[in-house]
Amino acid sequence: MPWYRIEEQDVQLPDGRVVEGYPRMDLRDYSIVVALTAGGDLLVERLYKHGVGREVFDLVAGLIEDGEAPMDAARRELREEAGFDSSNWTTLGSFVINSNYGCGRMHAFLAKQCQRVAEPSSHDLEETEIILMPLDEALDGLRAGRFELLSAAAALALAHANLTA
Amino acid sequence: MPWYRIEEQDVQLPDGRVVEGYPRMDLRDYSIVVALTAGGDLLVERLYKHGVGREVFDLVAGLIEDGEAPMDAARRELREEAGFDSSNWTTLGSFVINSNYGCGRMHAFLAKQCQRVAEPSSHDLEETEIILMPLDEALDGLRAGRFELLSAAAALALAHANLTA
Repeated sequence: MPWYRIEEQDVQLPDGRVVEGYPRMDLRDYSIVVALTAGGDLLVERLYKHGVGREVFDLVAGLIEDGEAPMDAARRELREEAGFDSSNWTTLGSFVINSNYGCGRMHAFLAKQCQRVAEPSSHDLEETEIILMPLDEALDGLRAGRFELLSAAAALALAHANLTA
Repeated sequence: MPWYRIEEQDVQLPDGRVVEGYPRMDLRDYSIVVALTAGGDLLVERLYKHGVGREVFDLVAGLIEDGEAPMDAARRELREEAGFDSSNWTTLGSFVINSNYGCGRMHAFLAKQCQRVAEPSSHDLEETEIILMPLDEALDGLRAGRFELLSAAAALALAHANLTA
């Protein structure tokens, strides 16, 4: 699949009305990982993101390859971007990114007991700094608006909701 | 601003490399409201969303009009969509929707002590059912994946993180 595909469609609503030329945006699905070490640190990335236009905090995340399962993509990205692995995975959900136009899905995972197993090997364009941030500090940062990407903020808040159930 | 605008740009990375034809997607910003009544119920909407292709749970939300402040849009939507109002507002943050392409911003708010003040007057295309759902039930639903829109799931999880600080 290409990076994105946009199509204007005539859409029939449940009540029978038709809306003409309504956009449908297909973007590639991605996985994102709230990765915690045994010591309770969160793997945070600091890197330039063009959607924001400057360096931001992000989590381990990446596009899902054709035919790849979302959790496999999450685990692959955790190894590639951070050199970490985990055998303790929880699904946090699969979410449609734009309620009107689609824009793909975000698949969120919580990986506990993450351990360093290799050097990062990512070939992403961005230069990425990996930070081990105490989870409480990250949650305070979330509440203070320091995670500005919807994907990262959502995944971190969903993990918190899961951990406090 | 139109509903969306897509432009391919040549992007210079912080290290000097240039990526040609990188997409920039401008979508209109929206506000979303985690609206709680004095009794601890959450205002949940059930409606058809074309991005998913069927009825889903959503929260009060809507596009911000030109020149409108995000919180004013949130309050207007709360009145229009649900007929509720509040004088107790907390900002949950402003988030870039797509880390690579932009896709606009989501502005999230928590409105406590919401009260019914009028009949809903929304002229949205969707037929909307308003549900008063106990917050704990909504959070259980969030954890079980029953909020499938990233916007609604993120806002609800962010409100939970705020309320449990």
